[in-house]
Formats: sequence, C-alpha cells, structure tokens
Amino acid sequence: MSGDPLSGDPSLLRRLNTAAALRVLRERAEITVPELASLIGVSRPTAQDLTAQLLREGRLVELSPGSGNVGRPARRFRFRAEAGHVLGVDIGAHKILVLAADLLGRTVAAQRVAVTPELPARERLDAVRAAVSGCLAQPGAAAVRPLATGVGTSGMVDTEGRVAVSDSLPQWSGLDLARELADAAPGPVVVGNDIQLATLAECTGGVSVDVRDCVYLYVGNRLGIGLWLGGELHRGHHSAAGEMVAGDGWEMSYQRLLDWFAGHQGAEKPTRENAARAVVTAAAAGDGGARYTLRAFAECLADSLTRHVAVLDPRAVVLGGGISRAGVLLSEPFAGRLAERCPYAPEVRTSVLGEESTAIGAARLALDQLEQMPHTDRAAQKSPTP
Amino acid sequence: MSGDPLSGDPSLLRRLNTAAALRVLRERAEITVPELASLIGVSRPTAQDLTAQLLREGRLVELSPGSGNVGRPARRFRFRAEAGHVLGVDIGAHKILVLAADLLGRTVAAQRVAVTPELPARERLDAVRAAVSGCLAQPGAAAVRPLATGVGTSGMVDTEGRVAVSDSLPQWSGLDLARELADAAPGPVVVGNDIQLATLAECTGGVSVDVRDCVYLYVGNRLGIGLWLGGELHRGHHSAAGEMVAGDGWEMSYQRLLDWFAGHQGAEKPTRENAARAVVTAAAAGDGGARYTLRAFAECLADSLTRHVAVLDPRAVVLGGGISRAGVLLSEPFAGRLAERCPYAPEVRTSVLGEESTAIGAARLALDQLEQMPHTDRAAQKSPTP
Repeated sequence: MSGDPLSGDPSLLRRLNTAAALRVLRERAEITVPELASLIGVSRPTAQDLTAQLLREGRLVELSPGSGNVGRPARRFRFRAEAGHVLGVDIGAHKILVLAADLLGRTVAAQRVAVTPELPARERLDAVRAAVSGCLAQPGAAAVRPLATGVGTSGMVDTEGRVAVSDSLPQWSGLDLARELADAAPGPVVVGNDIQLATLAECTGGVSVDVRDCVYLYVGNRLGIGLWLGGELHRGHHSAAGEMVAGDGWEMSYQRLLDWFAGHQGAEKPTRENAARAVVTAAAAGDGGARYTLRAFAECLADSLTRHVAVLDPRAVVLGGGISRAGVLLSEPFAGRLAERCPYAPEVRTSVLGEESTAIGAARLALDQLEQMPHTDRAAQKSPTP
Repeated sequence: MSGDPLSGDPSLLRRLNTAAALRVLRERAEITVPELASLIGVSRPTAQDLTAQLLREGRLVELSPGSGNVGRPARRFRFRAEAGHVLGVDIGAHKILVLAADLLGRTVAAQRVAVTPELPARERLDAVRAAVSGCLAQPGAAAVRPLATGVGTSGMVDTEGRVAVSDSLPQWSGLDLARELADAAPGPVVVGNDIQLATLAECTGGVSVDVRDCVYLYVGNRLGIGLWLGGELHRGHHSAAGEMVAGDGWEMSYQRLLDWFAGHQGAEKPTRENAARAVVTAAAAGDGGARYTLRAFAECLADSLTRHVAVLDPRAVVLGGGISRAGVLLSEPFAGRLAERCPYAPEVRTSVLGEESTAIGAARLALDQLEQMPHTDRAAQKSPTP
C-alpha cells in the first residue's frame, strides 16, 4: 500500500467517516451495512467497521432481524437517538420555555413558565433554573441527563454567550448568560439570539428545511429578521445579524393595527399585543375592516422587507411570531406585494413551529455544539462519577 | 486492520487529502514533506505518497536542494502554478478586459479593448473574441492554453450563464453568454455578475482576504452591492443577489455630484461620469466645495447602506468602482457615518484591485470551476489531440 496516500492517519479520516455515517443514520429509520456503504461512498468492509465502532460506542442499535426473506436476512441498524439528550431554553418577556430533546432533536419533555416582562433579571434566572428542574422532573424526561444546553433570548448576544444589548428584558444587557446558567444543567451552555434560533429551527426542522437561502421575518409584539444563507445560520461578525434600522417603515406597519383597535375599542393607549390579537381574531371571524387592516399591515411589512429580499435573493421568506398565526390572511397579501416589488419573488411560507421555535432552535444549537465535541468528552460529561 | 474503519476506499479520501494538500501548497512558496504532513494533519508516509502523486501529475515541482545545512537536506517542493492557466474576462459598457492567469490566479498577460456603451451585442461579442486572441498572442501568454474561462458582465446572470436582464448593454438581456463564448477559448465558460465577481476578487485576493463576512459597495457610474458571507460569495437563489431598490436614497446621492458640477461647469445635462470625475479631481486638488460635496455623497451612500450593514453585520465594507479612487476623501466620511448609524461599525476599506477587479474575479471563478473538475478531465481538455 506504499503507493496509496491513504495508508495510516486514522484519526482525521475516521472522524470524517464517522460524521458522514451519523449524518446518513440520523436521516433514516433503519439501515443495512450495504446501504450505509453506498450512501457515504465507502466499501462494505469500511461500513462494517464503522457500524461496529458506533455499536460499541452506543450510538447505534441493532434491530431484530426481519422475517419472510429467503436466506439469512441482512443485519439492520438504527441511530440511537435516545443515547443522549439536550435542553433547549427560550427566555422571553412573557414566558420561559424549556424543552428536552433527544439526539434527533425530537422533544421528549417540555416545561412552560409564565413570567412578566417586568421581572428583574435575578428572578428571571431563578425562573429559568426552576423551569429546567421542572422539565427534567417530568415522566417523559426520566432518562434525560442533558449533554448540553442551548439558550435563546432577545437582544444581541455576543460570540461568548453574553447579552450585549437587550431592550426588552430588565437588567438583561451585559448579562453573561452562559456563565449564569452553567449550574442549571450538566454540560456546556451555548447562547444565541431568539430570532436567529427560531430561524435555525425553521430551516433545520420546520417549514424551510429544503432551502439554502431563506429570510425569516418574526412578526409579533416586535419585529426581527433571521438569515439562513448558504445552508447555514448567518449570525454576523458580532453575532448581531438581523437588526432593523428606524425609518424603513417597520414601525408604521403597526400603526395600522393600533388605529383599527383604537377606533373599535376606544382604548386610549392600545398596546401592540392587544391590537394585533384583536385584529387577527376579528379578521379570522370574517370582519371586513379587520381583514383590510391586516392586509395593509402585511403590505407595509413587505414594502419594508423588499430591499433585503432584493439584496439577498432568498428562495423563501418565512413568517414567524405570534401574528403569523393569522396564516394566509397575512401571508397572501405579503407574498403578493413582495412579488410586485422584488426582481425575483421568493416563496412565502408560514412558520409551523410557532411559539416553540426559539426553544427548538436552542436545542439544535446544543446539538450542533455536541457535534464539535469528541465523543469521549461527551461520555465523560454524561457520567461524572468515575 | 479489520478493526480500522479506514482500510480501503481510496477514491473519496484521496480526493480529500489531495484537496487539502493543494490548498496548503498554494499558500506557500515552498514546502517539505514533514511540513506538509503537519499542516494537513496526516502522517509523513501519507504526505510522501501525496507528494509523489502530485509530482507525477505535474502539479508539483521539486526545488534544488538547499545548501549550508549539516547532513542531507530535506527535499523541497512548490506548487506548479504554471501547470495551467485560466482566462478572466470583463465585458463592460466602456471596456473589455481579458486577463490570463496561472493556477495561483496571478496575471501573466492582459488585453484591454475600449468599446462604446452603444455597441450592438454581436459586435461586442466579436470584440470579446478579438480581445481573447489579443491576450493569448502576447509574449507573456506564449505558454498559455486556457483550461477554463470566467466571464463577468453587468446585469443579472442566471445559474446557467445566461444574462437574464441587463439595463446597461444593448441587446444583452436574454443572451446565453456561456454558449456565445464557447468558441472563444478552450475549456468550459462560466459567467457571473460583474459586481459579484469584483467582490469575489477582493475577498480572495484583494483588500478583504482575511474576512468571513464582507459587503462590497461598487461606486461608479452606477451602484451595486456584492456579498461575501460565511467565507463564500453569496450569489442568491436566482444568482441575482445585490440588487438595490428605488427609494432608499441611492439615486439622491449622485444628485450632490451633479449639482456641484452643474454649478461649476454650467453644463445643462451633466452625466454622472463627468460629474464624478470633476468632483473627485477638484477634491483631490484641495477644493473645499468639492470636498464638501464628496463628503455629502459619501454620507448619503452610508445612510442608504446602513440598513444592510445592520441586517448582515459584516466585519468589513469594501468600497470599489471608479469613484472609490478618491480614497480617504470618500472612505473616511463614509466610515464615520456608518459608525454613527450602525449597531456595530464595520471596518471600511478601499478596493486595491481597481478596474481589474471583475476580470480577476472572473479568473477566480474559472479556477473554482477547475477545482470541481477531476484532474484527468482537465488534462484531456488541455491536450485535445490524442
């Protein structure tokens, strides 16, 4: 084999092969050795060896042989998604949501705690710890011992997991969330911006998994943009991608909702939340004026987003956030206006993950973190006692 | 070796190793086998075998042994950049520029042909063919037999190499440039938008090679945006990324130049080109009014770009195009205004590749195309006679 440049050097190449095998295994309910060999482009002996290694490590499980075939049935394997778990945490103004997910990102337990926007930071952090404990105490989480935790929160989160700026949560700016929550669960804590993580969720397990370039528009009590570009979450140089500037008409769009609400309810200081809920509810019930108002809101948002769609040329735009629950009443006028204004019209889709999207994206962030850790380290963290 | 998942399957792994070796070799003037082994993370025998393979293929050359060392000197090798060449072609309104470059992208010959904006498409294509022949006829190109050709042109270029829309060149919309120029030189022809290719050039061989996320702003007789995101050129789903929309103040910026020019020259219908040249020349000569005007122009551009910098959070913004030759007279007020308006101020840099940037980017596009072709196919194209 001296003429073959591949003799020796198992470590790098083994890792490449293992990563390729796990990618394929995660996407299939079951697989045979010849199938694995063909899918990742290696020989059957190599696929056999990879399978044996993954079985030893507990990352694969052998299924009982199928029946009905002539001759000896092929051995079948599946990814052992239950071999480990992660937590996904969404820290918001009104709620804290903690999910426990297996290695395929499937939720096995969840805990939701309502909080107030005014809650001081210390108490909000205590509520997070309590929600984590509550999630882990649930029947579905009996076997869960988290290997890593992902956390999503509003505000700009820097590359170290600190909240650089947060306008919506009191005493939140400057908080080192990764350190504050290090004791909440075993394993490393990784932190990201909530809208970036909702984008990650929709593009890896939601409505936009088939898309390489996608713009996510969060439409709730506030607005935000998330970017999925080149098949990856685009976080930006300071992890601050997705910020909107004043003066691009974003604020004006809400005025339509507030005006309708004030006209109907006579409220002197309507909040965005109340106004949006009332308009969406009335529009869904068939109220013509509310539908007109929602359409004006959607078109105003599309006008503001047009410049970003033109510059980025995404295949899809995903509408998320509470107001996206209006469904086609929001997405159709929005898509129509984008098609009028943009050189190429993107597909417009509505979030399917709803208010869990940030927590699901946080769990995905934790899974991505695990991928970068050697398997031995993960095992060590899983069983801290010698 | 039956317990080692890496036995067998040379093809995929050899390609991975070869690609890694070439990447390292291209970046260094010379290298020894132990250095190569260490840099790409393989054993010395594997690095030895890789070196032997690349020597056989003519992609590496051995240097004469160094002197002065005690004992037998280590064998030293360098990447054989002269083993092949590509062409980079810029088809513009005023010029056609053809570069011949080696496998490191270094220009070995160039041909520039002046054309008029009104030139019909057929004659413009003839001028391109003549410029290619002229480039290849130069002394520096005696050894050049192009393996691939990259072409940059204004307008939206689709993924197949057709010009979808071009506002600036007559009869250019709908042109299948890749097919039209297939006979101009040997090897495949790949086509891209001129501003996207200028971005590629600055981020792979120009002022922004160290940056993962970069926004390129072309400032000439027209404006354009190019995006380098996540260490890759972002072309968009329809290859149409970088389009600007009306109403974001872009047009207004030029009005400042036109007004100054009209006031000084009394020209009734000043063109952007004349106005820009006059303002930049006068500003460089110290004229206070021209400097004020150039500053206003720069700040207006920065205001328009702010929304994209906020959403994308790039590390750097590169100013290119003819007006960027004003240097700090443009870049300083531009950077100052961006810093005032953006959540995080990007570094502002001025293009170093100037009016060659699109042609250099086109040559890079051709090199990238070569990377995706198996080496045997390239050799076949190089020597079409059996």
